[in-house]
Amino acid sequence: MRESFDNQLGQLRAELAEVCGLTAVAIEQATCALLDLDPAAADRTNEVNADIDARSRDLDRRVLTLLALQSPVARDLRVLISGLHNIADLRRMGSLAAHIAEVARMHHPAAVVPEELRAILGDMGKAARAQSEAAQEVLRHRDTDAAEQLIASDDRMDALLRDLFAVTKGADWPYGAASAVNITLLGRFYERFCDHTVEISRRIIFVVTGQIPDH
Amino acid sequence: MRESFDNQLGQLRAELAEVCGLTAVAIEQATCALLDLDPAAADRTNEVNADIDARSRDLDRRVLTLLALQSPVARDLRVLISGLHNIADLRRMGSLAAHIAEVARMHHPAAVVPEELRAILGDMGKAARAQSEAAQEVLRHRDTDAAEQLIASDDRMDALLRDLFAVTKGADWPYGAASAVNITLLGRFYERFCDHTVEISRRIIFVVTGQIPDH
Repeated sequence: MRESFDNQLGQLRAELAEVCGLTAVAIEQATCALLDLDPAAADRTNEVNADIDARSRDLDRRVLTLLALQSPVARDLRVLISGLHNIADLRRMGSLAAHIAEVARMHHPAAVVPEELRAILGDMGKAARAQSEAAQEVLRHRDTDAAEQLIASDDRMDALLRDLFAVTKGADWPYGAASAVNITLLGRFYERFCDHTVEISRRIIFVVTGQIPDH
Repeated sequence: MRESFDNQLGQLRAELAEVCGLTAVAIEQATCALLDLDPAAADRTNEVNADIDARSRDLDRRVLTLLALQSPVARDLRVLISGLHNIADLRRMGSLAAHIAEVARMHHPAAVVPEELRAILGDMGKAARAQSEAAQEVLRHRDTDAAEQLIASDDRMDALLRDLFAVTKGADWPYGAASAVNITLLGRFYERFCDHTVEISRRIIFVVTGQIPDH
């Protein structure tokens, strides 16, 4: 029974990492919809998001079943409870990627991102994708060093968001308020997406060490 | 032992409702900081948010202890797991209120909200406060009718956000992009605050009925 329980925990862990991998695909496709004006990429974002949603619900159900049937304690309990929170984060990441694709879709065939901001938004897209790929490894290997590194690397996204707001709030912003509103929302979606990878990393550190990281 | 467990569950439920009450205070004070340009209200928002944070951590710890020591099943398990998610929502609501107060504080003594948007932002503040007070009752009484009503009433916040974006994105928006960026963020903070009350309500319906509401 213990062996089967361990197998199921291992299976859940592998699938959680897989779903995290899907969030990397979702944010990549969303960025593609946004910057390459590719409506097929927006559709793919939605498909991947639907997949994340369905798999999350299934994972949720299985974690609850294990909690109910196995009554785990100590580390196993931490693993399952953290798993539930991680699932919630991954679902939210999928939704945020879908929000980005939706902004692109609403304005198609017009570009939402003005030429001079393409670089920053492109960097945000890359950073978000890299962070969700890093989170996938953190989840798969429960690697606390990688988790610490991910948490530290989130400063990059915060700096990009500051750069973005510095441009849109600049006195010489030429694209009007409507454009500034869109860019603000997009920046915030990318930033929140990355915040969830930080939450996941903090939780993995907690699972492994029993300590909540103080940063 | 069952009696003591039930007592502890009842105690947690009462405290969760109390913390939800604090989120209502936090969003009210944040709105006051924003619209009445009252820096003391911004300070109070931060104090209440710190209180929400501390109490949430304590609740988290106690729920985990009950899970570990009592190994609950069926409805008790649903109650505790939902409790953990509710705690996470309440903490996030406190942070969102603090974000609003921070925007006000950063611009003080200047007003962030232009005269013509005071009414909409004021309505958003009232709606957010009303929804967190409603969520408090939902949590306290596990009233599924009240939960359904809260979910339905969230349409009001969505409509206010649409109104807000219609103004900031209008061709005749006279306040420039920087102001549009701030208003966009503020609108989004209020909307997300209310989304969390919806999540809490959906979860209470699940706890009581075992069914996830499909809206």
